[in-house]
Amino acid sequence: MERIPILKMGDLLLVTIQVDMHDRLAMTLQDDLTSRIVKDRARGVLIDISALDIVDSFIGRMISNTAAMARILDARTVLVGMQPAVAITLVELGLTLHGVQTALNVEKGVKLLQRSMD
Amino acid sequence: MERIPILKMGDLLLVTIQVDMHDRLAMTLQDDLTSRIVKDRARGVLIDISALDIVDSFIGRMISNTAAMARILDARTVLVGMQPAVAITLVELGLTLHGVQTALNVEKGVKLLQRSMD
Repeated sequence: MERIPILKMGDLLLVTIQVDMHDRLAMTLQDDLTSRIVKDRARGVLIDISALDIVDSFIGRMISNTAAMARILDARTVLVGMQPAVAITLVELGLTLHGVQTALNVEKGVKLLQRSMD
Repeated sequence: MERIPILKMGDLLLVTIQVDMHDRLAMTLQDDLTSRIVKDRARGVLIDISALDIVDSFIGRMISNTAAMARILDARTVLVGMQPAVAITLVELGLTLHGVQTALNVEKGVKLLQRSMD
């Protein structure tokens, strides 16, 4: 079960992160996601982190890198579902999610991506 | 992180099961999902199991029960993303997912639910 599923919704892909990330899982996700962007001709990626209580520098960097990879493949990434405590911690620790847009939830993220794709 | 996130998409709810189910997690999911159906006035529930390599009788019963609860609250449940090996195992073991419709993926599941809600 060491694989994070990627769900296709129209020309968007949705990834829900529920488990503790580690090196190998992050690499598998990046491999899978970049392959799927190309295969499904996706134009946007939604990463849902509503299940995460903590976003540390490792996860932050992984999300930034994933977004950068998607961008090169012409897909935009929106991070959705961040818990308030995670936002507080990110700012307090001075972590920035470079090159990643955020939205409150999946619905708002979909709208944001659709607006940007028009 | 012992909570499975429930994502709202229009009047549907999406649940992606990625981790091994156990009693407490299944109960939490059923509590959360029934609350969300009422709170978000959801008319359909999509349960994605594409990350599961194995569906045993416990998970099968959990899914059937969850669908039954949703149905009483006037929401239909569609199970999506089943791996071929899981379908083979379910039939070979004689497990039936009573009262649960299936669709190949999230997109087809959404269409099935939307058709049934018209």
